[in-house]
Amino acid sequence: MALIVQKFGGTSVGTVERIQAVADKVLGFRRAGHDMVVVVSAMSGETNRLIGLARQIEEDPDARELDALVSTGEQVSMALLAMALHARGCDARSYNGSQVRILTDSAFTKARIREIDDVRIRADLAQGRVVVVAGFQGVDEAGNVTTLGRGGSDTTAVAVAAALKADECQIYTDVDGVYTTDPRVVPEARRLDRITFEEMLELASQGSKVLQIRSVEFAGKYKVPLRVLSSFVDGPGTLITMEEGNPMEAPTIAGIAFNRDEAKVTVRGVRDTPGSAYQILGPVGEANIEVDVIVQNVAEGQSTDFTFTVHRNDAKRAAAILQELLPSIGAREVVTDAKVAKVSIVGVGMRSHAGVASRMFKALSDVQINIQMITTSEIKVSVVIDEKYLELAVRALHSEFGLDTPVAEEA
Amino acid sequence: MALIVQKFGGTSVGTVERIQAVADKVLGFRRAGHDMVVVVSAMSGETNRLIGLARQIEEDPDARELDALVSTGEQVSMALLAMALHARGCDARSYNGSQVRILTDSAFTKARIREIDDVRIRADLAQGRVVVVAGFQGVDEAGNVTTLGRGGSDTTAVAVAAALKADECQIYTDVDGVYTTDPRVVPEARRLDRITFEEMLELASQGSKVLQIRSVEFAGKYKVPLRVLSSFVDGPGTLITMEEGNPMEAPTIAGIAFNRDEAKVTVRGVRDTPGSAYQILGPVGEANIEVDVIVQNVAEGQSTDFTFTVHRNDAKRAAAILQELLPSIGAREVVTDAKVAKVSIVGVGMRSHAGVASRMFKALSDVQINIQMITTSEIKVSVVIDEKYLELAVRALHSEFGLDTPVAEEA
Repeated sequence: MALIVQKFGGTSVGTVERIQAVADKVLGFRRAGHDMVVVVSAMSGETNRLIGLARQIEEDPDARELDALVSTGEQVSMALLAMALHARGCDARSYNGSQVRILTDSAFTKARIREIDDVRIRADLAQGRVVVVAGFQGVDEAGNVTTLGRGGSDTTAVAVAAALKADECQIYTDVDGVYTTDPRVVPEARRLDRITFEEMLELASQGSKVLQIRSVEFAGKYKVPLRVLSSFVDGPGTLITMEEGNPMEAPTIAGIAFNRDEAKVTVRGVRDTPGSAYQILGPVGEANIEVDVIVQNVAEGQSTDFTFTVHRNDAKRAAAILQELLPSIGAREVVTDAKVAKVSIVGVGMRSHAGVASRMFKALSDVQINIQMITTSEIKVSVVIDEKYLELAVRALHSEFGLDTPVAEEA
Repeated sequence: MALIVQKFGGTSVGTVERIQAVADKVLGFRRAGHDMVVVVSAMSGETNRLIGLARQIEEDPDARELDALVSTGEQVSMALLAMALHARGCDARSYNGSQVRILTDSAFTKARIREIDDVRIRADLAQGRVVVVAGFQGVDEAGNVTTLGRGGSDTTAVAVAAALKADECQIYTDVDGVYTTDPRVVPEARRLDRITFEEMLELASQGSKVLQIRSVEFAGKYKVPLRVLSSFVDGPGTLITMEEGNPMEAPTIAGIAFNRDEAKVTVRGVRDTPGSAYQILGPVGEANIEVDVIVQNVAEGQSTDFTFTVHRNDAKRAAAILQELLPSIGAREVVTDAKVAKVSIVGVGMRSHAGVASRMFKALSDVQINIQMITTSEIKVSVVIDEKYLELAVRALHSEFGLDTPVAEEA
């Protein structure tokens, strides 16, 4: 007898048959005595169909109206799933974002959840009903429909689980868990039975696209146990937890993340004075360009080099902005390199294990890969390298840190 | 400078191109200085697509969930139209039923409007915005999404016009007005420039399917001037008004309505005692069978025949119910005839013109049509005849009452 929030993505509810299968799965949990809340995405393809209609009308559609439009996709899924439960003799009720009331700010197309009213959901659960909630959407103070941005249904599920203090939030997706790295790059990559929130955050933000990063942040902040499972294959999935497990047994490194879409921008000959970093990054940030890795070396003489990475699509724009600024910041030149990639090793174990970083650098050196930039955090070491060595680097590190080794499944 | 509520049906917003055309039309009115509120249906085919999905899941889908599902169709149209207005530099805002707040009762799939909150709409109009409202839907006291039943968008438009005390409610459809009768039956049928609410009510309920009957009732009750126009052909349409116009010029008969789908049920040898009509019709009504024409002749001796018509699909069920009741009501037998049709002449003019009914009967007699049942109201005479004479009867009456004659268009 637990309170479980489940979330099914677009592929899992992509056809009437799949919705029937989801209803069977939910009913199995309900019959086992659990209180069930189910969050659904739009049927796969539906959100794109709606956006396509909007784009035929306006290249950059009005954001308020776009949210009113695309939020209908999840409302269709929620109603169909509730019907499928009814058809199985299971009492169920669907609620859209404004009915639950999932209160958000007014940032259309990328709203953030402020508060979830749990009164209706709790009343239905108390009556033995399964509650179905439309993912991805909310309502602002003024009653406008908002959406949380792509993948926002994960965030809905975690936020609902947090509001209800659910025992577990299960995210059903088309992969059967979180892997040590992308199996398309390293065939030996294996599913993790458990991973900490911090590791998951670093893995997600570095490019392991299993879960929306905001949903993981949310889950960590509100201590919601999160489990990633496959809609199509039965299995335990990966549990994302607070605990690090037994540190003696914990592997040093949980996984390896990578990102191909980076570009490196270097400003050479920057005056080594206070405020120069801000003078460079301020205008870049104002242009809504997100900066990832930032490195500034110790100055040699009066000037220094300042390097950062941005998404590849933003490289030209960032360089153009800085080119204009060169005189005012007293720098010599701007150089961009769009052929770089970032590789990171992630693991809470490295906190207590010295030498992880140097072991990484040695492994890369052994395969003749030159490291262009390095950044570190408590549980992560990232390097920027030439893009063409990306796969080689990931495989070398995966092997070096013993991630290839099959381990016995946990219960 | 008027306040105009316009309603566009599913065909009028059936494609992105047509939505663009609607935006152009609305913008024309807005630029002429009018305050504009636009009610839209779902894109044609969308409601059926959604119901089709539901039926794949459950033959008789849960009514609450069905409303949650199909109400998304109008939300898609409303957002797309608002975007199209934005794209034309026209400030616009869309609202779904619960945002407006169109408060209804909780009769899912056939809810009735109780109250419309005009605060948001008025605030937007005051700021020069065009307001787009999703038709066909509302919300009950508990916050559940409801729908008004098929064609309910007309009702939404009229109710919104009534709440706003609009100067005119324009219903755009695929016909260019109300005709004296169905042009498919009588090619000489002509568009009426104006018609009274009462006439329109009788015509609509008798089978001229231009407007939902409930929307006409609403319009009459709240004295909202209603105009039926074509989305595709420019023209003045038909104005539905309170006034009867100049009685000297008013034609006696406004139009001829007919209905093919009737069946006649006769209970023979009913005891001629008080309460027998109720004993017969009570159980029929309880079975949710709608009864149309009812005729009871003066008794001959101790017993009488009681005849009524129902929708053809309900005839067998009605007969079965009455068959069981025969002993208790002391009647002899039940006879049904599913091959009847009803033809009605409608016109406020007949109030002051004696002899309209006899002129009708004579015209039918001249073409050898036997009249099976007759009922009359203040502005209508209906006869039930053998179905195979339906077209002949309509044409004969259309000609008899001078409806074929072309008249000069009003300004």
